[in-house]
Amino acid sequence: MTSTDDRLPSWRPGATRDAVLAFLDQAPAIPERDRMACFDNDGTLCCERPNYIQLEFFLDALSRAVHADPALADKAEFAALLSGDRAAVGEIGLPRVALALTGLFAGMSPEEFSVRVRDFMAVATHRTLDRPLRRSVYQPMLELIAELRRLRFAVTIVTGGGTEFVRAVSQELYGVPPEAVVGTLIEYDYRTDTDGPSLRRSTRLLGEVNEGAAKVRNIQTLLGRRPILAGGNSSGDREMLEWAGTADGPSLALLVDHDDDEREFGYESRAETFTDPESITDVAHRSGWTVVSMAGDWDTVFPDEHDG
Amino acid sequence: MTSTDDRLPSWRPGATRDAVLAFLDQAPAIPERDRMACFDNDGTLCCERPNYIQLEFFLDALSRAVHADPALADKAEFAALLSGDRAAVGEIGLPRVALALTGLFAGMSPEEFSVRVRDFMAVATHRTLDRPLRRSVYQPMLELIAELRRLRFAVTIVTGGGTEFVRAVSQELYGVPPEAVVGTLIEYDYRTDTDGPSLRRSTRLLGEVNEGAAKVRNIQTLLGRRPILAGGNSSGDREMLEWAGTADGPSLALLVDHDDDEREFGYESRAETFTDPESITDVAHRSGWTVVSMAGDWDTVFPDEHDG
Repeated sequence: MTSTDDRLPSWRPGATRDAVLAFLDQAPAIPERDRMACFDNDGTLCCERPNYIQLEFFLDALSRAVHADPALADKAEFAALLSGDRAAVGEIGLPRVALALTGLFAGMSPEEFSVRVRDFMAVATHRTLDRPLRRSVYQPMLELIAELRRLRFAVTIVTGGGTEFVRAVSQELYGVPPEAVVGTLIEYDYRTDTDGPSLRRSTRLLGEVNEGAAKVRNIQTLLGRRPILAGGNSSGDREMLEWAGTADGPSLALLVDHDDDEREFGYESRAETFTDPESITDVAHRSGWTVVSMAGDWDTVFPDEHDG
Repeated sequence: MTSTDDRLPSWRPGATRDAVLAFLDQAPAIPERDRMACFDNDGTLCCERPNYIQLEFFLDALSRAVHADPALADKAEFAALLSGDRAAVGEIGLPRVALALTGLFAGMSPEEFSVRVRDFMAVATHRTLDRPLRRSVYQPMLELIAELRRLRFAVTIVTGGGTEFVRAVSQELYGVPPEAVVGTLIEYDYRTDTDGPSLRRSTRLLGEVNEGAAKVRNIQTLLGRRPILAGGNSSGDREMLEWAGTADGPSLALLVDHDDDEREFGYESRAETFTDPESITDVAHRSGWTVVSMAGDWDTVFPDEHDG
């Protein structure tokens, strides 16, 4: 059956692809209201090694800012980053470092921030993969998203990263509109002056970092329904995968296992702020989730870098 | 031109309809990314007098709860409501009363809450208009929404009311999916027990009441783009209308003026928590917004009550 099925062409025939196709085959019988899929971004839809794409953007912005104002390099969070010493960054804590980095954009309008992100993504290349960052997304996941959309699923991104960063590129990379992106949010200030009203980025976090159980709470408060498909790759996705995987009716919890040291990176995925004693892959096997072996299940990992 | 135009059939020919059609005619030249419309709900898409629809739902739930536990009637917020004395409710403050009412649903799952809302809306009738509450929506606005959708606008609802209440009916009433509803939010708790994971309504408000400048901030944080069309009717919509009305390129700020004492209710709209010294209609005229006279501009106010 699967050998003559032309869906998901980058997925190799086998149990994983069969499980995904079996889920898709059930979709037409599911009420359209329930057809929502939530995907983590970093490591699930795109490469997150050696750095999150957003961190590459932040590092680029930091180097520009330090060029303009060298004193910035002395700030503890920035000094740790610029040293390239991951342990130093870890000691300060990624959330605090991320917050310091968002300070580089304080006072900007949402449009100005989006333009900065898009300008960066238009030219940035991956550090080791010899391809544009915007083409460091997983071709098999793009194919899955296309199938879901054909089946009239609401396809959403639920990321621990910055909501506005992902929104700036989600339409181009994945065809996902801004309102379908749930991430970590910075508050805005609304001001009215002689130029009229404007929104300006603050340095205050709105709510909590979108990882773990917060992902489930934010899916409900921001998207308003329970997903029947969730895709993730790290311990920060555990609750979201549990939530989708235990929905009534057909459901699919998909864990991307980074076991492909040749074409991508071999590592065990952990959200850096999470210290789950059990590896997420063990949780997945124990819970009966569908584990995607990048090495075994994907025939192609990345899209052709010249056609987009 | 407008006389042979079969769009917006419930809108009477005239300057208001011409202004709306002129905006719609420009849409195909607007980048699709920018095509987002935000509508207030109460008094803009549906009748809000004598009570908000959500208040009718709460009052129904309260009467059931008091029936089961008569002691509830002694709680100050509930006593004021049950007395029917608007001044007593005003003295306590609508936000505090609303929060007490949401307490009736504490511990419920989102699905249970939605079922409660839908069960109510399936049978509830308007107090004076002799029609189902679910048909107390404005036919001309349904037609405008249909045109916008045809033009590939993202059509969203930005309400001061409860997000989850509106989401439970937004698809049926307006064809608007849950993720396109921005309102006032209750936090959820995520629990895992022997029955598996569940989300349960708390009594904590998430963020602020969605009125005034909060509407603009929440449009950006939750929907991620600036609307080029906003529709509202009260002082709580002022900033949202200013925000849409000053967007780059074609934009439309639409204010529904409740001047139709015969077919609906004649009143000056004010958000109950807002004390703007200037009437919103005066603001609209001064700002060059498009003011919709319900009495003059709408040929039909409500949909035929038998066909849905």
